This record gives sequence, C-alpha cells and structure tokens, in this order.
Amino acid sequence: MFSTFIDKSSDPVKFKEWKPKIEKYKTKLKENTKKEWEVSSSLLPSDIDETPFNAIETLPKVVDKSVLDIISQPAHKLAEKLRTGNLTAVDTFVAFAKAATIANQYTNYAMEFFVDEGLKRAEELDAYFKKHGKPVGPLHGLPISLKEHYNMKNKVTHASYVSLIENVTDTDAVTIQNLYEAGAVFYVRTSGPQTLMHLDSWNNITGRPRNPHNLMLGPGGSSSGEGAVVAMMGSSMGVGSDIGGSIRAPAGFCGVWGLRPTQKRISMKNTVGAFKGFEAVVCVIGPLARYAEDIDLWMKSVIGQKPWLLDCNVVPVPWRTVGKPTPSSLKIGIIYDDGIVKPHPPIERGLTYMKKVLSEAGIEVVTVKPPRVAEAVETINKLYSSDSGKCQLDLLEKSGEPLLPLTKWALGFGKGTGLMNAGEYRDLTDTRESIKEEYFNLMNDQNISFLLSPVYNGVAPMPSTIKYWGYTALWNLIDMPNLVFPTGLFQDPKIDVVDSSYTPRSEIEKYEYGLYDDPSKFVGAPISLQLTGRRYNDEEVVKCGELISDLLSK
Amino acid sequence: MFSTFIDKSSDPVKFKEWKPKIEKYKTKLKENTKKEWEVSSSLLPSDIDETPFNAIETLPKVVDKSVLDIISQPAHKLAEKLRTGNLTAVDTFVAFAKAATIANQYTNYAMEFFVDEGLKRAEELDAYFKKHGKPVGPLHGLPISLKEHYNMKNKVTHASYVSLIENVTDTDAVTIQNLYEAGAVFYVRTSGPQTLMHLDSWNNITGRPRNPHNLMLGPGGSSSGEGAVVAMMGSSMGVGSDIGGSIRAPAGFCGVWGLRPTQKRISMKNTVGAFKGFEAVVCVIGPLARYAEDIDLWMKSVIGQKPWLLDCNVVPVPWRTVGKPTPSSLKIGIIYDDGIVKPHPPIERGLTYMKKVLSEAGIEVVTVKPPRVAEAVETINKLYSSDSGKCQLDLLEKSGEPLLPLTKWALGFGKGTGLMNAGEYRDLTDTRESIKEEYFNLMNDQNISFLLSPVYNGVAPMPSTIKYWGYTALWNLIDMPNLVFPTGLFQDPKIDVVDSSYTPRSEIEKYEYGLYDDPSKFVGAPISLQLTGRRYNDEEVVKCGELISDLLSK
Repeated sequence: MFSTFIDKSSDPVKFKEWKPKIEKYKTKLKENTKKEWEVSSSLLPSDIDETPFNAIETLPKVVDKSVLDIISQPAHKLAEKLRTGNLTAVDTFVAFAKAATIANQYTNYAMEFFVDEGLKRAEELDAYFKKHGKPVGPLHGLPISLKEHYNMKNKVTHASYVSLIENVTDTDAVTIQNLYEAGAVFYVRTSGPQTLMHLDSWNNITGRPRNPHNLMLGPGGSSSGEGAVVAMMGSSMGVGSDIGGSIRAPAGFCGVWGLRPTQKRISMKNTVGAFKGFEAVVCVIGPLARYAEDIDLWMKSVIGQKPWLLDCNVVPVPWRTVGKPTPSSLKIGIIYDDGIVKPHPPIERGLTYMKKVLSEAGIEVVTVKPPRVAEAVETINKLYSSDSGKCQLDLLEKSGEPLLPLTKWALGFGKGTGLMNAGEYRDLTDTRESIKEEYFNLMNDQNISFLLSPVYNGVAPMPSTIKYWGYTALWNLIDMPNLVFPTGLFQDPKIDVVDSSYTPRSEIEKYEYGLYDDPSKFVGAPISLQLTGRRYNDEEVVKCGELISDLLSK
Repeated sequence: MFSTFIDKSSDPVKFKEWKPKIEKYKTKLKENTKKEWEVSSSLLPSDIDETPFNAIETLPKVVDKSVLDIISQPAHKLAEKLRTGNLTAVDTFVAFAKAATIANQYTNYAMEFFVDEGLKRAEELDAYFKKHGKPVGPLHGLPISLKEHYNMKNKVTHASYVSLIENVTDTDAVTIQNLYEAGAVFYVRTSGPQTLMHLDSWNNITGRPRNPHNLMLGPGGSSSGEGAVVAMMGSSMGVGSDIGGSIRAPAGFCGVWGLRPTQKRISMKNTVGAFKGFEAVVCVIGPLARYAEDIDLWMKSVIGQKPWLLDCNVVPVPWRTVGKPTPSSLKIGIIYDDGIVKPHPPIERGLTYMKKVLSEAGIEVVTVKPPRVAEAVETINKLYSSDSGKCQLDLLEKSGEPLLPLTKWALGFGKGTGLMNAGEYRDLTDTRESIKEEYFNLMNDQNISFLLSPVYNGVAPMPSTIKYWGYTALWNLIDMPNLVFPTGLFQDPKIDVVDSSYTPRSEIEKYEYGLYDDPSKFVGAPISLQLTGRRYNDEEVVKCGELISDLLSK
C-alpha cells in the first residue's frame, strides 16, 4: 500500500537563500496583525507542548462581551440580522477580526491578515445598505476566512510551497468571486501543510497551527487554519478544500461542521496546486462552520451565484430546497470499523452514542461493513502519486525546503516516484468506477439513506502522526458527499481508556491504533463523525445534518 | 499528429475458426428479417458501387401509402397521436418495421432484428392504453432503433468486435431502460464499424452499410446504421453515441438531425466498448432524428426518467424548458475553415448559404477563426491511444479478425502503440482543459451565442476514406454540445466543382482535400452543418436548431 520515499528534494544550501523571503513574509504577517487587538502575552499558556490547554474555553475570558455577543452567533442568524439592517457589517467585522487576531495568538493558524481591506469592504457594504435599503446578497457583511490556496488578485498565493512565496496571482478564484458577490467580507487567509497533502498541518513558512481544543494537538489538515479559526470564532464561516480529507479532518478535529460537496458543484478554478491534469480524484471546495444551518447558507449562497457562468466545469445544478427529513423516513448505516484500522476508544464511544441518539429518535439504524476499503485506499494512493510526485517535487525542489515527515509519507503513497504508464492509470480509474458502483448499489439495495462513519480512526492527533486516510479518502475516490459534525462529546481520559487487548490486523493498523497510547494527551479533543450521502445529494446530507443537530441539542 | 501503425493483430488462421460464428450470426439476422415485408430484389439497384443510387427517393415507390403516411411523420407528431389514442402502437410499429426491413435491403445497416418482440411490446402498449386511457410515457409506442453498442438483457452485444460475437449481456443499458420506461418500442439494432473508431463504417461481421442518399457512399460512423435507418424512415428516432464524431458524422452524411449532448447528461452505463478507465474524453449517447423537434422530445423523455437514479455518474440536471430564441437575440460565429483542412466546395456552399439565411433572418453573424485546432487534434488523438491501443487490440487479437484500413488509421493516432506514462496523460488532460477554457472565453468575450461549422470537411465520403476528425473531435475534447442539421441542400456536381487552384497547407489536408477529386461521385449527398453551444446548454442548442429549421423551411 505504501512504498519508501527517498528524499532528494531537500537542499539546505539552496533553502538558505529562501529563508529571507520567508522572514519577509512572516514580518508582513506580523505587521498586518493589529497589536491593539491582541491579548496580553501573559494570558497565553507557556508550555503548550507539554500541557493540554483549551483555547476555546479561554476565549470568553479574553474577548470583550460585545465581541463575544456577535461572534458566538450562528452565521445564518448573523446573516439575517445583517440583511435586515439589525446589525452593521462594520460591527460584525470588527468583532470577528478581533477574535481572529486573538485566535492566531493561541493557534498560529494565519497566513495573511488584510484587516484594513476587510474594514473598508464592511464600510462599503453598510453604505450600500443605507443607500439601497437592501443587502448586496445573502452573505451581506459576513466575515469569512479563506484557506491560502485560492487565488486572490494581487496577493501572493503559495499553497504552502516556499518556492511560490512570491507568486502574485492576477485572478480571483471563482469561488472567492462567488462569495464576494454574495456579500462576504475577507480579511484573513489561513494555513495549510506543505504540499497540502497531510491530514495534519505543518509547513516551512508559518510552522505548525494548533488545535484550539488542546494546543498540544494538531488541528488536522490540509484546511488546518480554517479548522482552527472557525472553531475559535475568528470567522463566521470558512472555506476549505478536500482531495483526501482536507475539509473533514480539520472540521472533525476542531469540532466544527464541514461539508465536502460532490465534485464540480463548487468551482475550483483559479486555485494553486500541484495536481496538473489530475482528474481521477477531484479536489473540491466546501464550507466549515459552527452550525449545520450555516453550511446550508454557504452552499445556497455560492451556488446561487451560478458559478457555471464563470467556470464551465461546474455542473449547473442549482441548490435545491429540500425539507429536513423525518426520523421515520431514514435508514442510517453505521460503519463502526472499516476493516483496516479500528477506531480508537473515543471514536467508538461516539459511534455508540450516535447509534443511541438516532435510534431513540426513531431512525432505523443498521451496521454496514464497507466493501473493498483496502483496494480503495491502494487505488487512491496510487492515483495521488500517478505523476510520480513530479508536480509536487518540482515545486519543492525549487526552494530546496526540507521535506516534513508527513510530506515524505504522502509522496511515498502508491508507487511513490516509480513510473506509472497511462494504461495503469486508466486501470486504476476503472477500479475506482467499480468501487463507486458497488457503494451505489449497496445503498440502493439496502435502501440506506445515509452512512455514518468515523472521520479518522482517532480524535485530533499529536502533530505529524496521521498516516491513515482511509476514513476520508474512500469518499474522495468514489465522490460521495460528506458532512462532518461534532457529536458534542469530547475525549475524556477517564472514560476513553486504552484497549490493550486488541490485536492489530496489519502494520498500518498497528501504527495507527498504537497512536492512542496515552489518553491524557488527547483530553478535550472533540469527538466528530461523518455523514455520507449519495452523489449530488448534498442538500439531503446537509438537511439530515440539521436533523442530527436538533437531536444532539435536545 | 499520426504515427504508422504496424498490424500484429490480424491472424487469418485464427480468424478462420471464427468465421462459422459470423455466418451463424448473419443467418440469424436473415432468419429474423421478415421476408414478406421485403421488396422484390428486382427493385434493388445492381451496380451500387459504380452508379449513384438514391434509396430515399425510391422509398415512396416501394412502400405502401399507408406505411408512408405513418413513417413520414415527425416523431413528435406521432408521439402526440400515440399519447392521445389517435394512432395505435401496433399500426405505428408495423409501418416502421416494414420500412426498416426494406431500408436494410438498400443500405445493409442492420445487425439484429427482433421484430416479434417489438410487435408484442406494441400490443402490450395498446392494451395498456386501452385499459388505463393514458400512455405509459412520452414516447408511448414510438419505434426506436438502437446502435449495437448498448447492452440488452439476454442478447449478444459485440460492438462490432468479432471476438464478442457470443457475448450475451445480462443487463440493459440504462439509456435503453430510460427509453423503454418512456414508452419506446425496440426491434432493430444497427451497425457500427470495427472498434467503433471510424468516422465511416465497415466491420467484419455484416460488412459495409451504405448511404441511403447515394449507395456508393458511406453513411458515416460510428453510429453508421443509425444514420442510414433514420434517414430511410426505418425508425422514428435513433440512438447513437459519440466520442469523436460518431453521432454527428452519420447524422450529417445521411441528412438527419443528430445531437451530441454535453457529457454525463445521458447515461453510458452498461455499454460495450474498449475504453476501460478512459475519462479524458467521454463518450456520450444522443439522438438521431429527422426533425429538430424530435431531438427535444428524445432528450426530454430520456432525462425525464431521471437516469441519475440508475447511474450515479449522470449529473442530475433536468431537461430545462427554454423558448425558441428570437433572431435578434442571437450572435452566431461561423467557422469557415478550421485552419487544418479546408472544407470541400459543397460544404463551403452550405456555409455561405447558411450565412445568408441567418443574416436575412436578422441574426448577427460573425466569422470565427477557431484557436488551437492542431493542438486539440493532436491532444485528442494521443488520448484516444493513451493505453497504446491495448483495450482495442486485445479484443481484435482474440479473433484475429483482419484490421480494416480505418482501424489501422485510428490505432495509429497519437503515439499509436508507443507507451505513454501517466504524467504525459495528465499533461494532455491539462492541455485539454486549457483549450476548453480558451473556447469558453472566446464565446464569452465576443458574446457569441452559438458556433456554426462543418461536420467534416466534405459531404458523405467514398468508403473507408475519412481520416480527419478535427471538425467533430475538437468538441469531444472540450465537451461542448453540438447539433448536426441538414441544410436542405445536396451536393450537385454542376455547382460544386473542384477547386484545383487551392494549395493544401499540410499532408493531411492534401489527402483530405484531394478526396474531392470527382464531384460526380458525391451527387445527392446531403450538405449538413454543425451548431455548437456552451457546455450544459443542450436545451438552448436544440431550440436554436428549431429556429434554424423554421428558417430553412420558409
């Protein structure tokens, strides 16, 4: 399933030349951080690598009540107030921008602040509302954070590659245009890992973001910064992207909602990446938010802009208005174990709890053993590295930046740098289709409405440890939409004790299961799960999420 | 652009063993042809390889008036009568089945007749109507022909490969299911060329179908039989498929309408082909018909069955109801020459004529020079053979059947059997995307509603001569929907004289332009053109076609 990757990319001598550029970039980040909004450094924990520190719990103590009153509201409720003139864009903006600044002190999630631009935009939106008596769009005045992966006109977009640190892009990503036209306010771009191919986060530019629930832990990746800032209420909603789990891992580990939509409903045009001509697995952009209903708002607003008018690869499927399902109409299949890596105790507890919640609500719940997972993982790994890693290695070698451990791991996927011919590539695509068909039939034959499964075999991980992507990547391979949601439970070392009786079935399971060696490290990590629906049934998945949200808040 | 292909597949010794199977197949075809419906052989022309014979003009002389009264009606008008009980399915069926039988005597288009099944189905539909007072669906009782390329439960599907001549498939193609559910009656499956990768037709099973307008000429391919049977009124509408021009060449050469829809709107599930795991260029199924409005009926009826419920690769975009455009709202860009192969005199006449028709109707018409055609042709050719022809060669070698000239030509596309690595394949995909983008921008920047261009550089060809696919394959590469329509003009040796002053710009042009050496050979061949719209704007393309149909019949 994995081969050993030999690092020929790192070049300390060359990298030395690039270091001043990184320093310059970081200086700009610092300069563009509003000092007056930061909390006193005395309020920051000192030993975050040794002691779990919950930055979210600390937030109410370090931000003003007037700020908290705004940022703690769901985006869809804020949007309603902004659209009806019951809240100004400027007040909303300042509250989130302050929280975003403080959030960065705790979690180091930011790549770039441009708060002055955001403020100007908020002022313009208020002026527009005053003049016309109506909002510019459904997201009028909502501060939204952006993963540093999507082009913004006249700004650098490097996608965490040092060699692109001066890459000024001359277009806006179409999705950013859609969000802007819908009324969003931009002010911060957030961190991803090197190559964007880790399920956790670390890059050679801004280093390592942290998980706000427990600063010892990783926030997940690759939309790492989005997970952290949305959880820290530093933005009303965020924008991530996912080719293997990159929206869902950060959403799950940071305890927020995250949707990986069906491919080609949201535009990927004008984004920076190292996947030239790769369409066997399609990267998708989607929202992260703190409430189920916010996900619906985001999707409805972006698709409402008809992205297909700007990007001919987007399928012209409007966002359909569907009702919240009734429990008795649903049959949910739970995947307790994918057969490759057994979930750690806290995830097992989450699944058992959800089974109880769903059953008690009158939903039919069945156990599903997912077919062909090992084959799916092998297939997607080979596809990821189908160009022998060339696109990524070219960008890495240019700066000679050191390869981080999870970069080496991901570059070793499949055949690693071994050459693959086009026939093999097509065979893998064919296998993908056959697995896709099998899941399609599984749901139809058993009349299953949705599948419920782990996001990953564990809660948020210790940094640079995640190697198994199967729980998320399976769905990228066969392109079924997924909604990650927090169960409301958190890891508790007293309850989620190590199960030392379990005998792993493989090397990868031995490694991954072994990561849960000391429950005390993971204290407070959110227990999140993943809801999966049929292709293009994004609307139904989100609405089922809203029902689950109702059930969980009872 | 093309490499030499060395034939190692043909094996006369092995093929000898397969010949009895072919004979058995042909005997069955003969047995299933209703002798009592055939015309006397004395009515058939004897020297069809030497003298142009127009079978369409002969049709009214050889079929009964009662038959002609039915088969000459547009499908959408028949459908209305069938749906309202003003015509029975049996009467309709028998008329078309008789014409289909006679059409085969002239054009040799059929692969398989199953007229008894068709009659039984028609009787059942009449019984249904009698009992329920309503039709089963929008196509209630319409006899529809099918290319022999789509699975039909318990029937052989060989897709013109001798080695598959006993391949009994156990599923129905989803599109066939959709047509059936909509009320269609099936009774004949039609011929395609060896490998389905010719723009004309010839296979080692049933030989060569002929063009009904001039039996010396080819009907085009690969939906060869569909072009012939629809033109000969042997079915109310047909079902073709197109990965390089295979709906459009037969439609154009046979003087009927043909739509190549945007990919993934009509299901390709459960079809036989040799393109395992190939998604860089996507084959699409679409209708052939004698009237513009019939195309709309076919698409609306098939998509109305929600093919995405049976095939998760179909995008759930309902067939939208759009109005026929007003001439003043349109700007049509005409491509007179793609820069690679200049169209022959009759096609030039067709373009000039259409410019006049459109302009006089008040439509703004501009000339468009299509960008990057050579690059597009090279890209798609390399993609076609990206598995080094392996899928096709495996199926050919199994029977050792002789490779026909156009098979060798197509197998020599791109790199031929030279090995391509997955990185190159991805580079080609990337080039495709960049060309797609360029045409998207071209239409948006110049505010062009539709493009009008040749279907091929000539009218229907002498058999096994077409080598240039650029006029159709360009649109497969970048997936823009196309509607082929007859201008109502026909090649006339007196008007369409050879232009010997023209100096070809390349070897391929020299060859292709040189095919129009003797205008008398092409007499009576329909002059057809191709209308192209934006991706997913199939509805708009069809409605513009209806406007053009109105203008042409004025």
